[in-house]
Amino acid sequence: MELNSDIISKENSKSNWINRYSDVRNHSVDICKPLEIEDYVVQPIVDVSPPKWHLGHTTWFFETFILQPYCTGYKVFDPQYNFVFNSYYETVGARVIRTDRGNLSRPSVSEIFRYREYVDENMKVFLNSEFFNNDIEPILELGLNHEQQHQELLLTDIKYILGHNPLFPPYKPQGLNQNIPVNKVEMIGFPEGVYEIGSFGDSFCFDNELGRHKVFLNDFEISSSLVTNQEYLEFMADGGYEDFRHWHAEGWDWVKQTQANSPLYWHFIDGEWMHYTWSGLQKINLDEDLCHINFFEASAYAAWKGMRLPTEEEWETASDHFKWGKRWEWTNSAYLPYPGFKKEAGAVGEYNGKFMINQMVLRGASEATPEEHSRNTYRNFFPTHLQWQFTGIRLAK
Amino acid sequence: MELNSDIISKENSKSNWINRYSDVRNHSVDICKPLEIEDYVVQPIVDVSPPKWHLGHTTWFFETFILQPYCTGYKVFDPQYNFVFNSYYETVGARVIRTDRGNLSRPSVSEIFRYREYVDENMKVFLNSEFFNNDIEPILELGLNHEQQHQELLLTDIKYILGHNPLFPPYKPQGLNQNIPVNKVEMIGFPEGVYEIGSFGDSFCFDNELGRHKVFLNDFEISSSLVTNQEYLEFMADGGYEDFRHWHAEGWDWVKQTQANSPLYWHFIDGEWMHYTWSGLQKINLDEDLCHINFFEASAYAAWKGMRLPTEEEWETASDHFKWGKRWEWTNSAYLPYPGFKKEAGAVGEYNGKFMINQMVLRGASEATPEEHSRNTYRNFFPTHLQWQFTGIRLAK
Amino acid sequence: MELNSDIISKENSKSNWINRYSDVRNHSVDICKPLEIEDYVVQPIVDVSPPKWHLGHTTWFFETFILQPYCTGYKVFDPQYNFVFNSYYETVGARVIRTDRGNLSRPSVSEIFRYREYVDENMKVFLNSEFFNNDIEPILELGLNHEQQHQELLLTDIKYILGHNPLFPPYKPQGLNQNIPVNKVEMIGFPEGVYEIGSFGDSFCFDNELGRHKVFLNDFEISSSLVTNQEYLEFMADGGYEDFRHWHAEGWDWVKQTQANSPLYWHFIDGEWMHYTWSGLQKINLDEDLCHINFFEASAYAAWKGMRLPTEEEWETASDHFKWGKRWEWTNSAYLPYPGFKKEAGAVGEYNGKFMINQMVLRGASEATPEEHSRNTYRNFFPTHLQWQFTGIRLAK
Amino acid sequence: MELNSDIISKENSKSNWINRYSDVRNHSVDICKPLEIEDYVVQPIVDVSPPKWHLGHTTWFFETFILQPYCTGYKVFDPQYNFVFNSYYETVGARVIRTDRGNLSRPSVSEIFRYREYVDENMKVFLNSEFFNNDIEPILELGLNHEQQHQELLLTDIKYILGHNPLFPPYKPQGLNQNIPVNKVEMIGFPEGVYEIGSFGDSFCFDNELGRHKVFLNDFEISSSLVTNQEYLEFMADGGYEDFRHWHAEGWDWVKQTQANSPLYWHFIDGEWMHYTWSGLQKINLDEDLCHINFFEASAYAAWKGMRLPTEEEWETASDHFKWGKRWEWTNSAYLPYPGFKKEAGAVGEYNGKFMINQMVLRGASEATPEEHSRNTYRNFFPTHLQWQFTGIRLAK
Repeated sequence: MELNSDIISKENSKSNWINRYSDVRNHSVDICKPLEIEDYVVQPIVDVSPPKWHLGHTTWFFETFILQPYCTGYKVFDPQYNFVFNSYYETVGARVIRTDRGNLSRPSVSEIFRYREYVDENMKVFLNSEFFNNDIEPILELGLNHEQQHQELLLTDIKYILGHNPLFPPYKPQGLNQNIPVNKVEMIGFPEGVYEIGSFGDSFCFDNELGRHKVFLNDFEISSSLVTNQEYLEFMADGGYEDFRHWHAEGWDWVKQTQANSPLYWHFIDGEWMHYTWSGLQKINLDEDLCHINFFEASAYAAWKGMRLPTEEEWETASDHFKWGKRWEWTNSAYLPYPGFKKEAGAVGEYNGKFMINQMVLRGASEATPEEHSRNTYRNFFPTHLQWQFTGIRLAK
Repeated sequence: MELNSDIISKENSKSNWINRYSDVRNHSVDICKPLEIEDYVVQPIVDVSPPKWHLGHTTWFFETFILQPYCTGYKVFDPQYNFVFNSYYETVGARVIRTDRGNLSRPSVSEIFRYREYVDENMKVFLNSEFFNNDIEPILELGLNHEQQHQELLLTDIKYILGHNPLFPPYKPQGLNQNIPVNKVEMIGFPEGVYEIGSFGDSFCFDNELGRHKVFLNDFEISSSLVTNQEYLEFMADGGYEDFRHWHAEGWDWVKQTQANSPLYWHFIDGEWMHYTWSGLQKINLDEDLCHINFFEASAYAAWKGMRLPTEEEWETASDHFKWGKRWEWTNSAYLPYPGFKKEAGAVGEYNGKFMINQMVLRGASEATPEEHSRNTYRNFFPTHLQWQFTGIRLAK
Repeated sequence: MELNSDIISKENSKSNWINRYSDVRNHSVDICKPLEIEDYVVQPIVDVSPPKWHLGHTTWFFETFILQPYCTGYKVFDPQYNFVFNSYYETVGARVIRTDRGNLSRPSVSEIFRYREYVDENMKVFLNSEFFNNDIEPILELGLNHEQQHQELLLTDIKYILGHNPLFPPYKPQGLNQNIPVNKVEMIGFPEGVYEIGSFGDSFCFDNELGRHKVFLNDFEISSSLVTNQEYLEFMADGGYEDFRHWHAEGWDWVKQTQANSPLYWHFIDGEWMHYTWSGLQKINLDEDLCHINFFEASAYAAWKGMRLPTEEEWETASDHFKWGKRWEWTNSAYLPYPGFKKEAGAVGEYNGKFMINQMVLRGASEATPEEHSRNTYRNFFPTHLQWQFTGIRLAK
Repeated sequence: MELNSDIISKENSKSNWINRYSDVRNHSVDICKPLEIEDYVVQPIVDVSPPKWHLGHTTWFFETFILQPYCTGYKVFDPQYNFVFNSYYETVGARVIRTDRGNLSRPSVSEIFRYREYVDENMKVFLNSEFFNNDIEPILELGLNHEQQHQELLLTDIKYILGHNPLFPPYKPQGLNQNIPVNKVEMIGFPEGVYEIGSFGDSFCFDNELGRHKVFLNDFEISSSLVTNQEYLEFMADGGYEDFRHWHAEGWDWVKQTQANSPLYWHFIDGEWMHYTWSGLQKINLDEDLCHINFFEASAYAAWKGMRLPTEEEWETASDHFKWGKRWEWTNSAYLPYPGFKKEAGAVGEYNGKFMINQMVLRGASEATPEEHSRNTYRNFFPTHLQWQFTGIRLAK
């Protein structure tokens, strides 16, 4: 976590931080505006967290890692919240079993908003105070990026909650699904050779992006565009979900166990494919980029097409040559440490390293990613069976 | 479901029914008054239903079984509610899998209250109309008793929801836990002979109570009082939960799998037994009647004491000789049909008969039972492992 | 466990016991003669035990409850066998988790036969010695009856093991499936009144049959014959497995979860119902008594027929008026203690009492029951979902 | 699968193939010689297959992929064996659910040996005939390597079966556990640069090794020796299994769920660590290379030591500089396709490619690997939680 050590005056810096803090924090609240109180509470599957938990957890981060250690005299809002809103930081204390989050009606939503206000007020005073210095900037930066990650999860989880309600309530038409128009669909070629990937420079990145390093890549080609709904429907029509030859053994088990036959949120109603969108149940838009498929589906589609998914090294190398940012793009790279990766000491060290097994890397960003929270070195990662992210497919060969 | 065919004037009858309908319906709303909206939504275990579901389901009963078939021109509030609020009536259509109830944030609580108001208004108009006649009274009576059963479940489930929240929020001190003072603890004896049990007379009862019939009972004795917390603590102190000899094989498996070592809601904190009550976490009151034990625990306690649980025939025979009504009392009788039991035709026939296997009979009533909803022929029933009812122990030998 | 205290000379008695002991022990070995060694080892489901375990366990009973306590100087065959062959006697020591039995390739079959021979030789010397006296006769009698129970389970489990092998190997045509011809199918009526049931006299019975007692029965009728395959096929053809109205709620869950659509061992092959028999896969014999249905199926069949299953009190009362013994007949009685039931002290006290919950009583006997091991007071019992016993249906109303 | 297209005379080649075929086939039989028949049958966990299944499955491979397609007039031994002995080749037909293998007592062991003899006789005639030509050599080579892989699994599974029997029967002292003496324990350094890995030349390899390709490696050091029992005991003594900081999140879940506190086969008895070996239960040999740890444990040990596991590229690059072959060595590389990897058409295409997800690469070989079945390009792979392979740890930094 290297930070911008800018030379602008200290006062300017303080007010910049305060503004940035306010912007990020307000955005989380904005995302939840269309919700009913009841929508904040439920947890339909273990991978989804209740929106009120996201609001509390991101607040707990600032309280635990900034106000408690650095703000002298700070009084914790409620000592029991550490138990309720800690997510996975084993260092900081016992955590609530994740499956239980959807059972907790208290603290109530209004109480959690009070918690946010209390922490925000204290944070603003703190950021304006002499206690706030350069040493604290990295953890503050991390807290803001952490909240932005949860903003994306908030949208992901809200879609899951509303999209699995038999009444299919709309969220809010926001033009979130707009595609990036692609002028020309083509395969872009790269010659073999040694390339460099990984974060460099001074701007913020997560620890898993650090360590710019050389990689040797063979000749490869990568598509300028993502797979569309139309193209995926062809795979479905060709029996893609019924032919084991396209699938990994584990993917085929997933197909059979879940009886999967389409992306998440798709429903075949009266002879037509519909899907749940931010505006409720809608006809499939054929030209739109495919969304909500898991790694197994992405990989099976590529195999059916006689192609493959790119590696994350190929993706990063090529990323300046195509438009990206509306779908998280599955790569065929396992989520593993870069050469020289080191875990930070303490609780923040648990941020990324401990998940570096049995997950695949996603590159790019999605319609749910907050602005200014994407870069071409960003390494997102998810288990291979999950569909609920805003995921898409870019082919390579 | 035999009904009072009273001779009072038709108009009087109508207004009686309307008053009774209003009283019962309002009581459900009153029970929920202390809740936050979030408390209406969650379902911590499959046996518990979210309070908002109870409110919708009981309303759905009147809509489905009275307004739709008998009220000409009635317009259903929302056709999708049949799917959401049907509980187990296979006859009436597809039902939501029970485990999913806690995932449904919509319809919202306020929407469900609107549903209640809509149905209540239509019901009152209907009850005042010429369409309402004697033939409809049995199903109306059933609907009211059905709602009263759910009022008890509402309290049971609310206690579970709040009592499993790490913040232990109080519900509302209501003197609900008051004991019936027992003058003298003694064993009351009955000679062997032929006795009669089962419902008789004209007042309402469920179909499972019908068929007054003779039973032969051996000599038996039954206690005038329930087992107290103090007495149960002696069982615990004597290693009751560690000695398999007191337990059924299936009960012992339950102890080991759940690592049970106390009644539900009990917590050993700082060297002292506490339990969650309507007023929050409290010290155990030693003189209070024990509550929240399952059949296995009740049976193990009796075995440890060298006694046994009464049969339901013994309980009913003896019930005029002791005070009862604060705890559902486990009997050693399996829930099976009385001689000559017949299921009603149609959906209401599913009310009781289909559950007559692998459950045990509870007799009496509890602090959560609505007034005027208890009688000594009432046959309550639950599976043997559930603790979340307001259950107690009366010994026999 | 009351025993024949006959007056015949002591020597006669000794040689009678030795002969009886030999006969019973040899019969277990005879049952296994058609098996390959591999058949002794496997455990396809948790309810089935490997045949070699039955052979070891019944031997362990005599070693543990007779030779060890009463035969001075007896040397245990292998101290680890207590761990391997104890079934459920918590009193006697730790037991192998039941699901693990099918994983134990050792002790080998030949080793277990050596164990049997060793214990049998020691038992015969003991039965001939002065150490054997009247006090020991009850436990010896229990051991022999225990072995006979396991002979029935041996046949039941062997059928399951071979009948679930895709090669459907025959066991041995033994005329085991012969029906008792029924002259006339009719309903036999009994008037209401007080009857007596339960064991009486001096001959052996299990503790759960003890306590002859009065019961009051209403008028009832019971069939002189069992339901045939032909009759059950009518139920199936009428959609019996597709109509929830015939089923208990728990039974209907079982149908849906297991996708049950026929008795166990039935296979629909090339347009015809076949079933696995002792002679391999055979066409269904329409006139044969139905076999291998669980309680839910028995109960659903009765409901479809507009009748019901008899209670165990009715069955015992009527049992002299019809032929029985080829199928265990499901009753609608839960397996609960008779009035005055007392568990014996020590390990044998675990024999029956601790199972008296959530099981239903079966009356009669089956083609797998050893000769001289059936009587009309015998209370067999099984959980409601198990089909693998030789079970049938007798209707009542 | 490129094969040696040597120029030696055709006849020589034929007899070489026949000898090689016989040697490989006989070795499988030799491995099973110390077994009792019962040991061939059981399947204690889903990852283990019964030895008799291995013997049948490897035979089925030759029957299905050589004799049936290429040997005119060949008569299948038993048409049902395809169903029983197919492992995972979806192309070839329905397969028995893997968990069911341990339930199949038939075909018997002697029948399976008859099957082996029948196929072996036919194979020898075939290999000597004009039908056998160069085109068939690759699939024959694959069949032999396939059998060698199963020889390793046979030993692995036999150890699991005997090592999980409470009697701990020895297999056969065979000097299998002998260590390779390491003269000097040191870290061997390699400079950064482009290296080449992957199979080259004409000798046999699996499809997953094909495609020799360049990789860029940073500076690294790798140990000349494996971690010993002594060293691992230090990790255990230092609380390695109790400190989440050493573990991946998923590894820590594994520790808590399984309550793991040692390698597989280790037992703490009377104050001392013992482990099950080919000679039965023995004291831990401190100088011996650690064995039977899963990826999570290997990775946690490395983290505790402040080091890491090597990547497979590093391992292969360095492999000429240290001794290897007694333990499969966990790498920190996910099992993914090499650049340009292509699945073969048909059933043999399912050999490796479909497993390329959520598994980690192991390099080297083990004491259970058949002679002439190891090479430094070999890519073994297993899921991260499995301990039952002969796995060890080599550190890198």
